[in-house]
Amino acid sequence: MNYKEMSRQVKEASYALGAASHEVRCRALLSIADALEGAKEEIFAANRKDLEAGASLPGPILGRLKFDEHKLNDTVKGIRDLISLEDPVSKILLRRELDEGLELTRVTCPIGVIGVIFESRPDALIQIASLCIKSGNGTILKGGSEAKESNRILFDLIYEAGIKAGLPEHFSALVEDRAAIDELILCSDCIDLLIPRGSNAFVRHIMEHSDIPVMGHAAGICHIYVDESADLSMAVPLILDAKTQYVAACNAAETLLIHEKLVQPLMEELRKAQGVPVEYIPAVSEADYREYLDYKMTVKSVKNLDEAIAHINRYGSHHTDCILTEDAAAAERFQNLVDSAGVYWNASTRFADGFRYGFGAEVGISTGKLPPRGPVGLDGLVTYKYRLKGHGHIVGDYASGKKSFHFKNL
Amino acid sequence: MNYKEMSRQVKEASYALGAASHEVRCRALLSIADALEGAKEEIFAANRKDLEAGASLPGPILGRLKFDEHKLNDTVKGIRDLISLEDPVSKILLRRELDEGLELTRVTCPIGVIGVIFESRPDALIQIASLCIKSGNGTILKGGSEAKESNRILFDLIYEAGIKAGLPEHFSALVEDRAAIDELILCSDCIDLLIPRGSNAFVRHIMEHSDIPVMGHAAGICHIYVDESADLSMAVPLILDAKTQYVAACNAAETLLIHEKLVQPLMEELRKAQGVPVEYIPAVSEADYREYLDYKMTVKSVKNLDEAIAHINRYGSHHTDCILTEDAAAAERFQNLVDSAGVYWNASTRFADGFRYGFGAEVGISTGKLPPRGPVGLDGLVTYKYRLKGHGHIVGDYASGKKSFHFKNL
Repeated sequence: MNYKEMSRQVKEASYALGAASHEVRCRALLSIADALEGAKEEIFAANRKDLEAGASLPGPILGRLKFDEHKLNDTVKGIRDLISLEDPVSKILLRRELDEGLELTRVTCPIGVIGVIFESRPDALIQIASLCIKSGNGTILKGGSEAKESNRILFDLIYEAGIKAGLPEHFSALVEDRAAIDELILCSDCIDLLIPRGSNAFVRHIMEHSDIPVMGHAAGICHIYVDESADLSMAVPLILDAKTQYVAACNAAETLLIHEKLVQPLMEELRKAQGVPVEYIPAVSEADYREYLDYKMTVKSVKNLDEAIAHINRYGSHHTDCILTEDAAAAERFQNLVDSAGVYWNASTRFADGFRYGFGAEVGISTGKLPPRGPVGLDGLVTYKYRLKGHGHIVGDYASGKKSFHFKNL
Repeated sequence: MNYKEMSRQVKEASYALGAASHEVRCRALLSIADALEGAKEEIFAANRKDLEAGASLPGPILGRLKFDEHKLNDTVKGIRDLISLEDPVSKILLRRELDEGLELTRVTCPIGVIGVIFESRPDALIQIASLCIKSGNGTILKGGSEAKESNRILFDLIYEAGIKAGLPEHFSALVEDRAAIDELILCSDCIDLLIPRGSNAFVRHIMEHSDIPVMGHAAGICHIYVDESADLSMAVPLILDAKTQYVAACNAAETLLIHEKLVQPLMEELRKAQGVPVEYIPAVSEADYREYLDYKMTVKSVKNLDEAIAHINRYGSHHTDCILTEDAAAAERFQNLVDSAGVYWNASTRFADGFRYGFGAEVGISTGKLPPRGPVGLDGLVTYKYRLKGHGHIVGDYASGKKSFHFKNL
């Protein structure tokens, strides 16, 4: 298979997909949900093949690879919820009369073709394909090779159901060869956005080797700074939640910065705390400012708020960082100066999530500086264009002073 | 000079700059406007040195290089207008109660450090420096080497006036060595956005060799499609405006697509038209789908609307494209399916401009797919962050079902 040609096919189809009505896109989602439920035994059989072939893989990977009744139900429910969300396409963001008979509209539209490279979770394929259909984007999907059989049957079901419901041919394509990634990330004329999910090293590789804009995050090094005026009885459960509620998440806290006056009492309280044991590692070198994804946390004593802020801006990943304090001025300074997608005051970093923000769906979390930043919902899968409607209006008339703009928002 | 260190200094300063109040930023702009007016003789003297050193340069370059009373007045007026624009920073985009006592706010903030590489217009240095101060961004400015003396004095005046008005040290830096560009475009840990202005080849070089997001455009290949039902008496002046009102602009039309039934009568009218003579070049090969920046235009006959749309999506630059038609359905289809930042109906492509859209200021025009797209105003120089305020809220309580979100927009 020639991947340039494949991405060109999806690109051509994406224009028709982008112009498909919300009704057609939702009908396709409904048809996909039904198709998945109707073929569940075949899906589970394909998944069993993957599980057998991967029997020697580590437990956590097998856990993600497993696609059972429970996960199917969750995923199908996700599709049905998606149908009921507002159409992200064709939203009018600005409407302005520039002059009599000359009307400008800024309106949302799909991004075009999105290349998604994801880990070994078959449910991720379904989620991302559905989100892209809802938002009118063509997709090129590359799933984890461990999930090969599951991905193939899921993709076939989605594709056939989509076509039957009226989506254009080639609205989506599945890529099974890992080597294709290096070819696809160079197709900047046909792929408009890459969403890589997986290890830090992998995401960084994509970011460094592609001209295509990348949405996502590599490391998630989230901090909790315990300020001089923090309430210790609030701090202990909150730190434990941020660290241990789900250690494998990118929004789990990795570094604990403590005002020097509170180091001793806080560490005493933390060590006394019941529950999952956390290993607290005193910061010795820069190498300790890292993402553990484990029951471990780096601890560093800081002299004051500004040292904490400087540390986070220098060694953090601009994901989500929290200050624990009873002092509103300190919180304000922290939230203004910390350069992260999420700046929290007295709340666990684990809240950084599209569902918890009420977006209804999550595409991923972006640590880039430009929008979309932070947890990205359906809105992150659209861009906008400017429509201008005139009646033969020419710029020469405005340059000569014959006419002038009056800029009236409508 | 070590450019990594320089960009690190600007990065550190950008946090304080970003937290500076709108009052301080506007005071700095006022102080800069006064300083420029007060030192105009020194500025003109420096500019004369550049003009003398560049005496052998082509006329149009010398025209851009020249910085006289007229340009100074325009630029200073631009700064004073900028002061009166609304603060783009700290705008609340979303405010939502996730649960009792847990409040999420999406708020605009500066992007951080912006690297701007521009052509030989001294006024461009002033404009971009002012826009970045207004939006709270640190800047690294690299001007054209032909304007070396002018850039140096303008930068010194801006920097000193800014510092006096309370901006933090190192809020901006000037780079004079062209070789620095290759070093700067690798400083992705300290520079958050690049705005390259200049030739297509140069902009493309930057886009291809930097990990830093780039805002801008390489070629501007704008189309006018004359549909079957177009009004020829409207078409002729509009095509001439789009082509000739300012041929060096990126929004000037370069390719004329004509419905096959109208080729003969339209070309006859165009040839009869008085005024500047345009050379109409029949399309022979793909090489003709190019940016002339001259009184030349490629002409191609197309069978129908869909062929025109496919041509534009394939060979255009996603900048601005126009349909001339009296048929509303054709216009709707064109504006939906053409994948460009600007999709126009019966209006000259030359309207694609931040001032003409009523943005009050223009940073540049972006042909990227992700926002900001099209003409970019001050809003394109900010991003956003999420502030979350809680009272010790932890995710465990929501995972266990002890608490649940209620999502109330405020």
